[in-house]
Amino acid sequence: MSDAVKTRSDFRHFETLSTRWGDNDMYGHVNNVVYYAYFDTVVNRLLIERGWLSPLQDEVIALVAQTQCRFLSSIAFPQILEIGLSVKRLGNSSVTYQLGVFIQGADNAAALGEFVHVYVDSQTRLPVPIPVKVREGLLVYHV
Amino acid sequence: MSDAVKTRSDFRHFETLSTRWGDNDMYGHVNNVVYYAYFDTVVNRLLIERGWLSPLQDEVIALVAQTQCRFLSSIAFPQILEIGLSVKRLGNSSVTYQLGVFIQGADNAAALGEFVHVYVDSQTRLPVPIPVKVREGLLVYHV
Amino acid sequence: MSDAVKTRSDFRHFETLSTRWGDNDMYGHVNNVVYYAYFDTVVNRLLIERGWLSPLQDEVIALVAQTQCRFLSSIAFPQILEIGLSVKRLGNSSVTYQLGVFIQGADNAAALGEFVHVYVDSQTRLPVPIPVKVREGLLVYHV
Amino acid sequence: MSDAVKTRSDFRHFETLSTRWGDNDMYGHVNNVVYYAYFDTVVNRLLIERGWLSPLQDEVIALVAQTQCRFLSSIAFPQILEIGLSVKRLGNSSVTYQLGVFIQGADNAAALGEFVHVYVDSQTRLPVPIPVKVREGLLVYHV
Repeated sequence: MSDAVKTRSDFRHFETLSTRWGDNDMYGHVNNVVYYAYFDTVVNRLLIERGWLSPLQDEVIALVAQTQCRFLSSIAFPQILEIGLSVKRLGNSSVTYQLGVFIQGADNAAALGEFVHVYVDSQTRLPVPIPVKVREGLLVYHV
Repeated sequence: MSDAVKTRSDFRHFETLSTRWGDNDMYGHVNNVVYYAYFDTVVNRLLIERGWLSPLQDEVIALVAQTQCRFLSSIAFPQILEIGLSVKRLGNSSVTYQLGVFIQGADNAAALGEFVHVYVDSQTRLPVPIPVKVREGLLVYHV
Repeated sequence: MSDAVKTRSDFRHFETLSTRWGDNDMYGHVNNVVYYAYFDTVVNRLLIERGWLSPLQDEVIALVAQTQCRFLSSIAFPQILEIGLSVKRLGNSSVTYQLGVFIQGADNAAALGEFVHVYVDSQTRLPVPIPVKVREGLLVYHV
Repeated sequence: MSDAVKTRSDFRHFETLSTRWGDNDMYGHVNNVVYYAYFDTVVNRLLIERGWLSPLQDEVIALVAQTQCRFLSSIAFPQILEIGLSVKRLGNSSVTYQLGVFIQGADNAAALGEFVHVYVDSQTRLPVPIPVKVREGLLVYHV
């Protein structure tokens, strides 16, 4: 993950997400764990809404193989967030997403994440090639 | 909690909430626990945004004394929800909210909840009267 | 739910549960939502470990129809909890559990809950009778 | 994070953690997000129980600056886990923990994580040196 501070122009897709009361921990800011729930949500919502994933029906599903996040500045409920997404790498079986967490209207990311999906057979859970329509669709988000 | 099926007209305030991937459990629908996170979020966001609660600054805060929920039909990520809220009872120290979980655009609630806040001194955590400006503000939402 | 303060002798089964950092909210105590995660866990672990539920295989599964909780005193991470469980009512299709949240070693419950499971066909999600072996097994926990 | 498969001997401290029903997602295994809740819990419980952190009282607290996790094989509720912890790097203000998620009794990790704490002033939230007693205490866990 590059150390450069990421701005909104580094992302190809945004989803607006509202924080929840329980996202804040004892320190009064969003707990580090919850950022990964934002990532999971934004990646999977994109896939589902584009028609590229039906989690309980598909014979090929995407499992998470690796994630990471750098926390640059605090966010807190009840702020509204905009989560930016780009595709950083399209492999044979895996997709690496880059994610940015922005407070609504802010230009610099409060956190930067990476999220690696591996496509697997839903029964055997062994890697398979990314389905063609998904690969083609994700090219739009590639940086 | 009345057994009558509640519709949108029974609520005085709505907040749109997006579901998250992890809200769904093994059965592919939103887990019962998560509805309470929606309730917590909608009640506290209303209080904070109206200027009636600053959780880390106020000398009087509202703690949850009792909650309940009836689950009438399934909801699932990635659906968008509208959570309805009304004030059912304004006591001396306590407020009882009535909440309804609606799939966006639906007329009948998928779940109905109750949520009782008790106002307490933030240090002693003993009950105190509801602050006057809060009580007056909440009258708007009373049914 | 009776108003009498419940003690350990009111419960027929106990599970020890550890709290998590994120269970605590901004007020430094376990958030009301999380108690329901404890209930869900204790009921389902009992059913699974006794061989009465295989969530992803069974043709008859148990969905949550109603829950409630009264919060009597605070608990907080990193405390260890003991969750008490009894069966309060065995209906034709539904089971009502009574749950108590105890700080390890404490005699009085910090919270009291109810949790209603309805047995349904896993495909149609329509109510069916409680399977015989489950009903017989649960009699041990009946109060 | 090294690519070598980690075994129990790579960790200096273990905590037993129970999974929860809601840890499993639609795919019937523990959701990637939840592993970070395990990490947060094990690191902070160690710090609190050793007397090295009082989250709501201390003038110096530890915030999470960066985390990552590689998911090697599935885990699922109701399994019991053992989370291994080592200190990989002790900087001036920051501590890097290495974490391993093991199914109870297993020798190879199901997931490997890193977790970076930065010590800050609880008011200004600016970095400060790791308190001496914490630094000395953590040496025991250094690998």
